[in-house]
Amino acid sequence: MSSEGARVWIVPDGFIPERSTGGLESHEAICVLNPSRSDARISLTFYFEDREPVRGEGVVVPAERTRHLRTDRPEEVGGAEVPRGVPYAVRVESDVPVVVQHSRMDTGQEALALMSVLGHPVER
Amino acid sequence: MSSEGARVWIVPDGFIPERSTGGLESHEAICVLNPSRSDARISLTFYFEDREPVRGEGVVVPAERTRHLRTDRPEEVGGAEVPRGVPYAVRVESDVPVVVQHSRMDTGQEALALMSVLGHPVER
Amino acid sequence: MSSEGARVWIVPDGFIPERSTGGLESHEAICVLNPSRSDARISLTFYFEDREPVRGEGVVVPAERTRHLRTDRPEEVGGAEVPRGVPYAVRVESDVPVVVQHSRMDTGQEALALMSVLGHPVER
Amino acid sequence: MSSEGARVWIVPDGFIPERSTGGLESHEAICVLNPSRSDARISLTFYFEDREPVRGEGVVVPAERTRHLRTDRPEEVGGAEVPRGVPYAVRVESDVPVVVQHSRMDTGQEALALMSVLGHPVER
Repeated sequence: MSSEGARVWIVPDGFIPERSTGGLESHEAICVLNPSRSDARISLTFYFEDREPVRGEGVVVPAERTRHLRTDRPEEVGGAEVPRGVPYAVRVESDVPVVVQHSRMDTGQEALALMSVLGHPVER
Repeated sequence: MSSEGARVWIVPDGFIPERSTGGLESHEAICVLNPSRSDARISLTFYFEDREPVRGEGVVVPAERTRHLRTDRPEEVGGAEVPRGVPYAVRVESDVPVVVQHSRMDTGQEALALMSVLGHPVER
Repeated sequence: MSSEGARVWIVPDGFIPERSTGGLESHEAICVLNPSRSDARISLTFYFEDREPVRGEGVVVPAERTRHLRTDRPEEVGGAEVPRGVPYAVRVESDVPVVVQHSRMDTGQEALALMSVLGHPVER
Repeated sequence: MSSEGARVWIVPDGFIPERSTGGLESHEAICVLNPSRSDARISLTFYFEDREPVRGEGVVVPAERTRHLRTDRPEEVGGAEVPRGVPYAVRVESDVPVVVQHSRMDTGQEALALMSVLGHPVER
């Protein structure tokens, strides 16, 4: 089962909404499943429109566990600071194959909206 | 037509919202199409952030039928209990090729939101 | 450019909501792009949970055109009658490669929700 | 890293909603990540139901940058005019591999809705 997934995933549309309404905070999560029997060590590269990429390092997803990493919490994405209200893209690299999905909750305007995509798998 | 789809599918972002408003209940569904001429016998593995995986067994999707399995109903997912309000991921394994999509309805904050992804196909 | 896309696409999660609020009607669309220089002739197979599949035939997507086919309008899906409020799945088959995306607008509970997936490509 | 992504991407379901409510304008964005070390030069072909395709040319996504291109702003999509309220599809072609995601925000009916798909990759 160790070869399920890919080592590199890319998600082009990242954007943490600035505003929230109601009790649910606008946020995004990079959802990783590690179905293998080995822990996965993950690094993240955040790309922007007008500045150099920013790296987050040393995120661990244990064997047979999932982690849903909030991009607005630097401690969950290896120390990277991702500003709100700014378009970004993200590349996820793992030392063992994983599967990556990216989801957004936007409560910026009464009620809430969700969107989600599986990343684009690159290296198998 | 028996080779359309894949035997293993992975969806990293599972989360059954705790709250519902209005007449529609927050829920998720694992939607399976079996386009083949043979019944499909399906097992599900649910992965969590901080506990061992949970298995559901013996779900049948008949030949040339679809089933939309509610993850909050153990009787629809082979007996697995998936708690609300907890991040999870799911791996679907079938004995014949199928196609898997995962959708969420969230009515946790006035109005409703939907999200949906096709799973990541692993073994063909 | 005639090989861009696939001849068979599958979408497991179909569901035309029964209720609508406001001015926008709940609906789904099967969005097809034919980027080739030849007209595409398309047939659709709708699968259900508890009845035989239903076929729609003879839908044409002209060369270098897109069509967004409403599943609640039999005249747009080759004569197939897809009931509201019933889970279904759909398989799209074309005589030339096309690209297929499936989207839902749900206005069943104040405000509106959208979801969309690219189909699962089968034969290239 | 120059081979991550694809040179051609297709998104069948484009539609810029005509109405907006609240402070957020209904819009779509073609989100491109160029993870390579070379600038990407991009052309876009917009397909319609009842008219000839329209081209946009000369969009640049610099090396290691993302751009989220609003389809309602001709200056962001190489000069192409995409009307609101009309179904379209889009094909993105790049001279270096990129990754393409397409997202819609619809605020046409109180509250907001989001949908997003990764494009269908064609040439690697």
